[in-house]
Amino acid sequence: MLNQSTDLDRMFHALSDPGRRAMLDRLVRGPASVKDLAEPLAMSLPAVLQHLQVLEVGGLVTSQKIGRVRTCSLRPDALRAAEAWLSDRRGIWESRFDRLGQFLSEQDDQSGDRS
Amino acid sequence: MLNQSTDLDRMFHALSDPGRRAMLDRLVRGPASVKDLAEPLAMSLPAVLQHLQVLEVGGLVTSQKIGRVRTCSLRPDALRAAEAWLSDRRGIWESRFDRLGQFLSEQDDQSGDRS
Repeated sequence: MLNQSTDLDRMFHALSDPGRRAMLDRLVRGPASVKDLAEPLAMSLPAVLQHLQVLEVGGLVTSQKIGRVRTCSLRPDALRAAEAWLSDRRGIWESRFDRLGQFLSEQDDQSGDRS
Repeated sequence: MLNQSTDLDRMFHALSDPGRRAMLDRLVRGPASVKDLAEPLAMSLPAVLQHLQVLEVGGLVTSQKIGRVRTCSLRPDALRAAEAWLSDRRGIWESRFDRLGQFLSEQDDQSGDRS
């Protein structure tokens, strides 16, 4: 539970920066080198490497250095885990309103029976 | 775009703390006072108020003080926006694999035709 919670902390923290989200936007389209990631973002390589580290710690990205090129890839399971966490909460919230709707509709029926 | 990005920054930042996520877990079940939120978390009232402020800035929670009681409620639209952002990325990622699968299957068919 503690580890799972820490994973969510790191993942949501990784998602809380527009530069890191832009890097993910690129990586959902396929693996990319650090240079490829940096170019459209007008970011320095050290800045990209720093963001990359946060994305890796957040479990969202993995990278591998072959020769002089570091290639980054998305880890889609982390995106799915964050989405599942949010979807579970939305489910609880919506079922609460479904139950409220059902209760009000039953009240209507009962007052209809009485009238 | 800038505002939307800032909204996502603040929302994901708000979600990156286990105490704040525990407060949301309580609020998906219905509105609660600050005291109700603090009790099961073994958190001081000032700590809860501080987290509450981050949740409010993140657009996830709204609160209203009537008399001496501040009541907090979930704003489900923000949860939906975060979920939609993640779901869009997953969609792009998965359609990439669908296209790859289709391509490989077409290659198989063509090599089958030739054999």
